[in-house]
Amino acid sequence: MITTTESIVSQGRRARRAGKALAHCSTAQKDRALQNIADALLDNQPAILAANELDIEASREMGLSDSLLDRILITGARLESMAADVRSIAMLPDPVGQVFDMHTRPNGLQVGKKRVPLGVVGSIYENRPNVTIDISALCLKSGNACILRGGKEAVNSNRLLARLVQEAIEDAGIPRDAVQLVGDTDRRLVSAMLQMNDYIDLMIPRGGAGFIRFVSENATMPVVAGGVGVCHTYLDRTASLDMAVDIANNAKTQRPTVCNALDTLLVHAEIAATHLPAVARKWSEVGVEMRCDERAMSLLAPLDGLKLKLAEPEDYGTEFLSLVAGVKIVDSLDEALEHVDAHGSGHSEAIVTEDYSTATRFLEEVDAAAVFVNASTYFCDGAQFGLGAEVGISTQKFHARGPMGLQELTSYKWIILGSGQIRT
Amino acid sequence: MITTTESIVSQGRRARRAGKALAHCSTAQKDRALQNIADALLDNQPAILAANELDIEASREMGLSDSLLDRILITGARLESMAADVRSIAMLPDPVGQVFDMHTRPNGLQVGKKRVPLGVVGSIYENRPNVTIDISALCLKSGNACILRGGKEAVNSNRLLARLVQEAIEDAGIPRDAVQLVGDTDRRLVSAMLQMNDYIDLMIPRGGAGFIRFVSENATMPVVAGGVGVCHTYLDRTASLDMAVDIANNAKTQRPTVCNALDTLLVHAEIAATHLPAVARKWSEVGVEMRCDERAMSLLAPLDGLKLKLAEPEDYGTEFLSLVAGVKIVDSLDEALEHVDAHGSGHSEAIVTEDYSTATRFLEEVDAAAVFVNASTYFCDGAQFGLGAEVGISTQKFHARGPMGLQELTSYKWIILGSGQIRT
Repeated sequence: MITTTESIVSQGRRARRAGKALAHCSTAQKDRALQNIADALLDNQPAILAANELDIEASREMGLSDSLLDRILITGARLESMAADVRSIAMLPDPVGQVFDMHTRPNGLQVGKKRVPLGVVGSIYENRPNVTIDISALCLKSGNACILRGGKEAVNSNRLLARLVQEAIEDAGIPRDAVQLVGDTDRRLVSAMLQMNDYIDLMIPRGGAGFIRFVSENATMPVVAGGVGVCHTYLDRTASLDMAVDIANNAKTQRPTVCNALDTLLVHAEIAATHLPAVARKWSEVGVEMRCDERAMSLLAPLDGLKLKLAEPEDYGTEFLSLVAGVKIVDSLDEALEHVDAHGSGHSEAIVTEDYSTATRFLEEVDAAAVFVNASTYFCDGAQFGLGAEVGISTQKFHARGPMGLQELTSYKWIILGSGQIRT
Repeated sequence: MITTTESIVSQGRRARRAGKALAHCSTAQKDRALQNIADALLDNQPAILAANELDIEASREMGLSDSLLDRILITGARLESMAADVRSIAMLPDPVGQVFDMHTRPNGLQVGKKRVPLGVVGSIYENRPNVTIDISALCLKSGNACILRGGKEAVNSNRLLARLVQEAIEDAGIPRDAVQLVGDTDRRLVSAMLQMNDYIDLMIPRGGAGFIRFVSENATMPVVAGGVGVCHTYLDRTASLDMAVDIANNAKTQRPTVCNALDTLLVHAEIAATHLPAVARKWSEVGVEMRCDERAMSLLAPLDGLKLKLAEPEDYGTEFLSLVAGVKIVDSLDEALEHVDAHGSGHSEAIVTEDYSTATRFLEEVDAAAVFVNASTYFCDGAQFGLGAEVGISTQKFHARGPMGLQELTSYKWIILGSGQIRT
């Protein structure tokens, strides 16, 4: 398959047209399309697994690591879970057409806002083929056409999945161009996509920090950047011991490869002697490596069975995505806040405390997409926050911050209902 | 005054620091700063008028037109109106700290959003010096630091106004760096500002279409683009005659130089014989030039006292900003919708109709920041929509659309209040 720059622009033009039609499709029609997609995933399991097997073989030949291969892999169980996610998106309320902030002005004009789709969403992502289904489904429900460009490692899987989605939505009367895959994985097409601000209204890059920065700096359309999480959990002077252990353990070890996992544990000096060894022992059960400042090291070094290293300065700004954590003892809330401000990425930050004023200050002063009191940062997720699903987690302040669900894929227009009013 | 690229970066750094302090200032403190600004404008009237006189003289020597000179001019009455606007911003509710969408999840987590400032707002604008005061005041109230770069035509006025603002806010205990003017009008500094995404979170350009496009394409931070309004009023088959005349007249003639003024009048063929001559006669009272399609021309040509021309194709996509209007007769709502879709700039669009289904379709299908039924597009304005004031009118869909007031200068963070919850 050869996709020239010209043909990707033609994809954009077709997406724009399909998006205009999709914007006015009924909720019932969009939900029917989503149910069709879920059915198609299950009905075509053998073909999907076969296409995925081609990707896995090619990736293995390219020498990809087991963890990367696992990201590309589709299994029967994963396919069922993808289908279930699509059905749950069908169950969510349709954001399009919602009218809000409607009120009557002194002159009798009724003024309010009506929610509308953004238009065409572009997404460039790396290996996981389920992203093809997730973003298609969220865009469909929110009335947006989408142009997807997945990584070359999953190209066979993505091509088949995109074709199944197109057939499924066409069966529901939605133009197949509303979901398009850039099936050619030539890297030059990424640059071409980033120039298409006439046809793409929002770009969602998903991948590593360097890739997201490249997209942010080169895209001509708005970009929602996110994904990089350097996350702290601060155990305050008044933190309950049990809660501190549970939360630090959950945030670090439940799923260490995700962006909302704990990266650095900050511990107030007054409780360090009790709380830090307790967390360390719990972490040692799964082999967490702790990169400690000198005070933490001298507290923990006498204990057996811990993986300890002295922290290098750069450890405190690192997203580990693995069973590694920075550890630092601080003397005050102020020192904790300064550390978070200096080293956090504005993603998810937590405090464990029993002190009301301390909790209030932490909530007020920490500048991050999600600020937690007495809960694990691992909760930072669209489904957990009640959005049903997410296209990603924004660490920027513009348009949407934190988990982005259906509503965050919409804009609004002002609607003004008059009875002949003029302005003098 | 010489501002090097280095010194503008230092302004950015200082704005970032001042913005962090301003974000946590109390509403009372911000309102005191605003009242101080209003007082300072009135107390320093002689000095302000003298500085403005320098700008007027220099601009006259440069051969600027009377209408441009009028945009630069500050009078005693205009100064009072600027002060009154600042006081009215002080009376508006403070958006910062508002908590919304708070709800309890099944696991007992309380999840919601808390409104926060964006950080540092940049604005690059042309001649009108009151923009210096307007944007300073709106940014202050919404907790944002700002870096302002006005046009060289008003540089003496802007430098004095900015200094008065800095003194006024300092008297209220807010760092003077929270409002900064780029006092050097070297054009290269515009390019330097557009590269400062580390220090400026949002750029608001105000000026002509070409300038706004330049900023949008070259800025490394998010831009709110707007201002260009190619606006239609469509007189439907069922339009009341009186309402049609009032609304078309108000939208075209009340203030023809603003972006929400009528540019093209679309008239349904079935009522053209009655409604179009009535509008034309009303318009002729103030000398509106009508650029007509052939059918409109043949209807209007027999009448006396009208300024008529045959429309060129480009007239239908033009923002006239003067007493000129395109006129076209259409045979159906569909044709009107197609014309608006092809030629509108997504700003303000109106229909005059008594038909429920027609009004509904127009509201649903027109893709613009503000869609009016039976009211004048001249209402598209922050104050008229209940926002109190505006920094501009966005014609994009991302972040904010239409008039942007205090809330549109904010973001939010998710706040999550737990009692020890972990995610399994």
